[in-house]
Amino acid sequence: MKPRKILESIPIYVGGKPIINKRTIKLNSNESAFNIPKKIIKKSLKSLKNLNRYHEPTGLFLREKIAEELKIIPENIILGNGSGEIIKIFIESFVESYEKIIIPQVTFSLYEIYSKLNGNTTIIKTNLTDGLDIDLNDILEKADNKTTIFIANPNNPTGKSYKYQDILQFLKKLPKETKVLLDEAYIEYSENYDPSIYRKLIEEFENLIIIRTFSKLGLAGLRIGYGISNSENIAQLNKVRPPFNTNILAQYIAYNLLEEKNFIKKLTNFVKKERENLFEKLKDINIKTFKSDANFILIQAKENLDKELEKRGILIRNAYSFGLSSDYYRITIGTKRENLKMIKALTEVLT
Amino acid sequence: MKPRKILESIPIYVGGKPIINKRTIKLNSNESAFNIPKKIIKKSLKSLKNLNRYHEPTGLFLREKIAEELKIIPENIILGNGSGEIIKIFIESFVESYEKIIIPQVTFSLYEIYSKLNGNTTIIKTNLTDGLDIDLNDILEKADNKTTIFIANPNNPTGKSYKYQDILQFLKKLPKETKVLLDEAYIEYSENYDPSIYRKLIEEFENLIIIRTFSKLGLAGLRIGYGISNSENIAQLNKVRPPFNTNILAQYIAYNLLEEKNFIKKLTNFVKKERENLFEKLKDINIKTFKSDANFILIQAKENLDKELEKRGILIRNAYSFGLSSDYYRITIGTKRENLKMIKALTEVLT
Repeated sequence: MKPRKILESIPIYVGGKPIINKRTIKLNSNESAFNIPKKIIKKSLKSLKNLNRYHEPTGLFLREKIAEELKIIPENIILGNGSGEIIKIFIESFVESYEKIIIPQVTFSLYEIYSKLNGNTTIIKTNLTDGLDIDLNDILEKADNKTTIFIANPNNPTGKSYKYQDILQFLKKLPKETKVLLDEAYIEYSENYDPSIYRKLIEEFENLIIIRTFSKLGLAGLRIGYGISNSENIAQLNKVRPPFNTNILAQYIAYNLLEEKNFIKKLTNFVKKERENLFEKLKDINIKTFKSDANFILIQAKENLDKELEKRGILIRNAYSFGLSSDYYRITIGTKRENLKMIKALTEVLT
Repeated sequence: MKPRKILESIPIYVGGKPIINKRTIKLNSNESAFNIPKKIIKKSLKSLKNLNRYHEPTGLFLREKIAEELKIIPENIILGNGSGEIIKIFIESFVESYEKIIIPQVTFSLYEIYSKLNGNTTIIKTNLTDGLDIDLNDILEKADNKTTIFIANPNNPTGKSYKYQDILQFLKKLPKETKVLLDEAYIEYSENYDPSIYRKLIEEFENLIIIRTFSKLGLAGLRIGYGISNSENIAQLNKVRPPFNTNILAQYIAYNLLEEKNFIKKLTNFVKKERENLFEKLKDINIKTFKSDANFILIQAKENLDKELEKRGILIRNAYSFGLSSDYYRITIGTKRENLKMIKALTEVLT
């Protein structure tokens, strides 16, 4: 069959390579390095009565749980088959194909892919600062009231995040009609994370959708994420949401993961601490390293470093597909043992 | 936020009511009345090592299993988050927004919803025959080489299905460029089902996509379905497929369900037999009943019958949202006990 004309100009999503064998150290997809506690799965299976039935389609019990954590109401939340699905539903709900889209030059690729799939041809890339931060001022200059803006905070693959204070200032300066999708896929790993900010954010900014995910907390294989906005926007998103879009087992497991506050706290604290360690160690071996607020670190080194590490059984991600030059690499923070091996391999290859 | 203009004319998907309480008899969503064997879940959990990891995104092991069953190759198959997702991916991949869409007057609502979401404004509804069959001749008259046709076989909510021989004849008469999506969500329950036909179908008709699902075989809660076509079409669909669109646990459970051939055989045989029983019993109480080839039966009776049954704890589906008048109802075939109670309640209400 002949593909739609528009597809010719749509880039293909490039994901990290899947695992090669049991001993492969996989630091290329920003996954959590740890399995979730087995008791979470056991508990979830106990709740699971009727796989043969369609479930309540909006996942109310999970939305209630998330709402409680974030001091908002369930009507402010929509579940997605991964947060990526919310990007798509957001565009299909609110973004006319003739509108301008602003996307930072170096960021997650799905914003552009889904925008183009929607027929949006005017995509404006904005500059990064010298330190590879998203340049909020450049966005402000280029945005008008017929614009949709995508911002990842922390950004991927740079790892940089803005404080909510800066985000609020930025949002205030935008025209009221400008739409903003704020992607917080990595927010739990950020020192700036503040779970109490959401009510203020969605009350103050009517054109704001925030997306979050369970994928980076240990549930990548289950496909569950969510969007946050005022209840009018969420009601509208629900009209476009595919029926029964998230699976019931993912809903239960995400719910029970949220109950395990200690596991999440330990996980995020471990990553934050290990991130600082790695940062210092990478500096010690003279690799250009960028300060990160996520569960990965961006480095700049020599070409083909990823291939050299792959020979040693370690997968890291070339950041070329994100719009950086091909000597940039994104390295996910693994377990202590994995990180040590990665540093050792880097040292061997680079010195 | 202001919704896209196009959304004003898009109908909202109406699903069957979720279960009300434990004693509710749910015959309104064409689910399997039976839980899958527990050992399938146990076996699947054993395979489940890394929920924290993104999996191989195309679900190769499950595609291999399906390919083996249908005597095709894994490259002929794409997995979806339910078969509904394949409808969407198909439209986004191949259907230009200026093209005509042909949809039978009374059928599954997602064809129209997803077409309109794609910007397709010329939607042509075709007639049903007096017996409520899809009128293939009417479709042939209205189709040209810039047309996409949606056909459900068996159709929902009428339950009618065509023999492959008729489908083949129909496809041969269409212009080669006409695109056809053949939705076989209920095919396992049809007397016409022939698992060996797929290779011929996709080799002979380059513009054909067939979709199937595990939802009606006991996995509605898991969201897993698939599309079948030649490998070029599938490769194209994969470019538009959201990354990691199906969850790994659903893949394992679907795989292990396919291994339980006896369970599937018993289930489908039970439904076929019970369908004949019910048909006779419904006739006995003078209800207008349509011959079905699916796991449900369409009837015509008095207005508000669904509400009367709901008072008695039985949910059936008003077929109004499918385009029939509101005295038509679709009744899913339940367990023996459930069906008896349903017949008893119908008899009480109608006589």
